Amino acid sequence: MNVKKRGLFITLEGGEGSGKTSVIHELGKALEEREIPYLVTREPGGIRIAEQIREVILNPAHTEMDSRTEALLYAAARRQHLAEKVEPALAQGITVLCDRFVDSSLAYQGYARGLGIDEVLSINLFATAGRFPDITFYMDIEPEVGIARIAAAQGREVNRLDLEGMDFHHKVREGYEILAAMYPDRIRKVDASVSLEEVATEIRGRLAAALKDFGL
Amino acid sequence: MNVKKRGLFITLEGGEGSGKTSVIHELGKALEEREIPYLVTREPGGIRIAEQIREVILNPAHTEMDSRTEALLYAAARRQHLAEKVEPALAQGITVLCDRFVDSSLAYQGYARGLGIDEVLSINLFATAGRFPDITFYMDIEPEVGIARIAAAQGREVNRLDLEGMDFHHKVREGYEILAAMYPDRIRKVDASVSLEEVATEIRGRLAAALKDFGL
Repeated sequence: MNVKKRGLFITLEGGEGSGKTSVIHELGKALEEREIPYLVTREPGGIRIAEQIREVILNPAHTEMDSRTEALLYAAARRQHLAEKVEPALAQGITVLCDRFVDSSLAYQGYARGLGIDEVLSINLFATAGRFPDITFYMDIEPEVGIARIAAAQGREVNRLDLEGMDFHHKVREGYEILAAMYPDRIRKVDASVSLEEVATEIRGRLAAALKDFGL
Repeated sequence: MNVKKRGLFITLEGGEGSGKTSVIHELGKALEEREIPYLVTREPGGIRIAEQIREVILNPAHTEMDSRTEALLYAAARRQHLAEKVEPALAQGITVLCDRFVDSSLAYQGYARGLGIDEVLSINLFATAGRFPDITFYMDIEPEVGIARIAAAQGREVNRLDLEGMDFHHKVREGYEILAAMYPDRIRKVDASVSLEEVATEIRGRLAAALKDFGL
């Protein structure tokens, strides 16, 4: 029996304006050059149940949203996206590049909003049923620099998270630092403040090392 | 400072057609006679975020719903209903009668659907932030008897749960039996197969004992 090797599960993390989209594009190019099949996604990723859940979360009218409700809804959308899109791809040997995953919930809800990393981890362990990323690239940037990049960009809707103050973004960064220390093997921190070319070189080097580690 | 004694949190549990609605009516009458202020509710209870979550869960078109997604959505709706309706009432000294709560998720999703009672408990401990019922009346009935009562009743929408087979309802009952053994102090099992008059007498006696225990 020919058992196909499962795809690599790579996630991208970082604060607002940390350049995750450019990095995903770069990772995709590098995978193409190596003829490794891949899929780019982000929650809710066109999965209709996850999309509907996301609408409830991001509705700006929902000012009465409890922070625990919000964390549970993110976990629910995560579960459905994982079950319908990520897991089937991995099983077919396709490498998955996912823009934000569990660590975002841990940094944003668990740490920055103060629910507790362990508490939010408990519901995400349920949501993922043990599936954690093989590699996570954490794009680290000063919140002021990231937010300025966002403001310069155009044409996307403002959601509740954008309206939070700068203190919140600093807390998010602290949260990511704690996670990087909690998961030193999985989370690879990248300096996102340098030029796009420098980031690309760094990312490609790290990807090559990771692929070698995983025998791809 | 006059600190008001918080209200008692009473939940009703049981399979389909176990007569929870009649029992809630009886409990309400008994509380009125004692001039104890009370509120009757059930999730999503008119709480708009919880109502929207419930719509996603019960949409019969959502056949691709993953069972973990469903359990997380129930926990999310529970959290919002608890935070917006139950906790404020309890804080004002109002006794809350809630038709189904955590035990339904544990019996239905945790046990009958096979996710595991402990697993579903973990997300519900997050959702409730430690608020568990003071007393739970578990209305025990043979599933065949309960389903026949439902079929005889009129005028409510069919949802996905109704469509499950009898094996499922037997598993739910087994799940409740396990929970009654897990929480012997909180869960009071009531034989729901006898006449409504007999159930009413039993329930009133148990309520009186519980109120005495809690100093009300």
